[in-house]
Amino acid sequence: MTTPFALRRRALKKQLDEADLSAVVVTQPASWYYLTGFTGEAGALVVSAHSTTLITDSRFTEQARRETRGVRVIQQAGGLSTSVGEFLKILAGRGRSKVGFPAGHVTVAQLQAIKKAAGARVRWAPAEGYVERLRGHKDAQELAAMRRAAALADKVMAKALRLLKPGVRELEVAAEIEYQMRLLGASGPAFETIVAFGERSAFPHARPTDKRLKKNELVVLDMGAILAHYCSDITRTVVVGKASPKVRGWHKAVQEARTAAVAAVRAGVTCGEVDAAARQVLAGYRLDRYFTHSTGHGLGIEVHEDPRVAKGQKQKLEPGNVVTIEPGVYIPGVGGIRIEDDVAVHSGETEVLTRSPRDIIEI
Amino acid sequence: MTTPFALRRRALKKQLDEADLSAVVVTQPASWYYLTGFTGEAGALVVSAHSTTLITDSRFTEQARRETRGVRVIQQAGGLSTSVGEFLKILAGRGRSKVGFPAGHVTVAQLQAIKKAAGARVRWAPAEGYVERLRGHKDAQELAAMRRAAALADKVMAKALRLLKPGVRELEVAAEIEYQMRLLGASGPAFETIVAFGERSAFPHARPTDKRLKKNELVVLDMGAILAHYCSDITRTVVVGKASPKVRGWHKAVQEARTAAVAAVRAGVTCGEVDAAARQVLAGYRLDRYFTHSTGHGLGIEVHEDPRVAKGQKQKLEPGNVVTIEPGVYIPGVGGIRIEDDVAVHSGETEVLTRSPRDIIEI
Repeated sequence: MTTPFALRRRALKKQLDEADLSAVVVTQPASWYYLTGFTGEAGALVVSAHSTTLITDSRFTEQARRETRGVRVIQQAGGLSTSVGEFLKILAGRGRSKVGFPAGHVTVAQLQAIKKAAGARVRWAPAEGYVERLRGHKDAQELAAMRRAAALADKVMAKALRLLKPGVRELEVAAEIEYQMRLLGASGPAFETIVAFGERSAFPHARPTDKRLKKNELVVLDMGAILAHYCSDITRTVVVGKASPKVRGWHKAVQEARTAAVAAVRAGVTCGEVDAAARQVLAGYRLDRYFTHSTGHGLGIEVHEDPRVAKGQKQKLEPGNVVTIEPGVYIPGVGGIRIEDDVAVHSGETEVLTRSPRDIIEI
Repeated sequence: MTTPFALRRRALKKQLDEADLSAVVVTQPASWYYLTGFTGEAGALVVSAHSTTLITDSRFTEQARRETRGVRVIQQAGGLSTSVGEFLKILAGRGRSKVGFPAGHVTVAQLQAIKKAAGARVRWAPAEGYVERLRGHKDAQELAAMRRAAALADKVMAKALRLLKPGVRELEVAAEIEYQMRLLGASGPAFETIVAFGERSAFPHARPTDKRLKKNELVVLDMGAILAHYCSDITRTVVVGKASPKVRGWHKAVQEARTAAVAAVRAGVTCGEVDAAARQVLAGYRLDRYFTHSTGHGLGIEVHEDPRVAKGQKQKLEPGNVVTIEPGVYIPGVGGIRIEDDVAVHSGETEVLTRSPRDIIEI
């Protein structure tokens, strides 16, 4: 039986052929998982036209052999980079070869060590984005996993709302959120859960602190779960008490921005156009200067993937892309509001994976 | 009042002087936290003889201004690498400058973009390990934080042992461990908690699964907490039921290896000698071939830091170093045993931060 991993390697090999590369080095754990199923944290994968080889250290070799099929596992002798270089030297044999490396992930020191060990017969080409582009197109099995990861985050969001009472601390709520995720089957949070009360909610990436919730404060909850290797990412904004007319106005604007951006999502539209749809709504409310980040990002094995849904991005959405849509406004010294959903692009109708209610929540 | 952050920057500037560098770029979050107190996840820090400048994006500028003192915060325009390069161009002014970059952390693509924006007046030198070496010498405040982080892990270990009953799943135990850490004040786990039952314990870095515990199986628990920015790291091995004579023998050997390595730890001894002390004990039991990883690693703001306690390492231990000592044996298809403590090097007596009992635990 052909595994999805083997199919993905086949698609990558096709790209190597087209780019006239003998092989490509894959150094990101998410990418080697995508291509082989190996879940270890250290190593490097070399994919050539004829073979797939994983080089890793003694902690992971046995695990790699069990987790993969059709992949040769080599235990590194000495440093990883040197072992990768030596392997590429052998692969090149007496001929010449051209090897792609991920310039955005390989460090200067690693490349130097790999080149030194590989010798002069191996030439090098920056080969950014090959695996990332493949990962951007989720297959049916991946989409099914992402639906489940999104549904799990919805459930945890509902539970988290019940914890929000004056006096509770940000850190307590974050701990409970991540615990509930795991009880529901997640292998862990997709990122450090954000629980931000009051004016701390004006920091889009606030880390939870000892701060206690006061009545009528804004609460931003931003969380994601990893379930069966795939991530979800959801944000809701809550007022514990009564929202002021100002806060209601901001929330309404963000909600409209979210709706406009989701409506703009479809195959063939550029990511910049989706970003502009959200930004334009907020500009209509004169709130665009408080929307200080991009509208969204790709989501999958990692919580930040291709494509980026940001200002001016020319990349076109394609069926199989899953992105977040997460406009927000952040008023320094006052607070912030963000609403975030996960959205899948299909050739037909766009699918919103996140189902939690989006109206302003007063508790 | 001079903050510890300012003192550390002063120490770094002294090193720059000695190395004839105009400035150094710091790209690791743990290192910029160490030098400034900034807890954001994105950015780059430039430390020169006369100034410290943090370049970050709009999500983090406000936070950076609040968290730091004596640090100029610049919001990046466009890509981070380009902004860093442009800043270094301005810093060089009409003169020439030589800037150190961390070759082991800057990617090939980043360095290319930085160089392009910085222009020809800026020369470059790989400057590995400046901040890492400083971070290796914990000051009194850091040591106090690490003692508390280790004590927290001890408490959670005691709680975790009570959960181990036949039928419980690896993932449940891991979830409970991380939840308890946070209830005790940790900001989170220092790494993905390892809970490995039965033959899965033979994988040193097993990720928790749905597997249920059976009677008389080995259990490896490896966990660490981040408390006030500093990590702990502890491993204990347990038998739920009765240990076989073979398992008792392995455990005794690992325990002796741990004792020998801890006894070898003191200022002036090389890391390689500490590693050899553990390895030699296991060789006496003909178990050295099952000890497939190094004896330990530095511990601090990150869970893996300098120095590495591994075979042949010439680096000498110095007062202020905190390292793990974690020998283990892994019998494929049967199971593994590991005992891990955190140890601080002083000019006087070595301090073992981890206090949990080390005898074989039968539950």
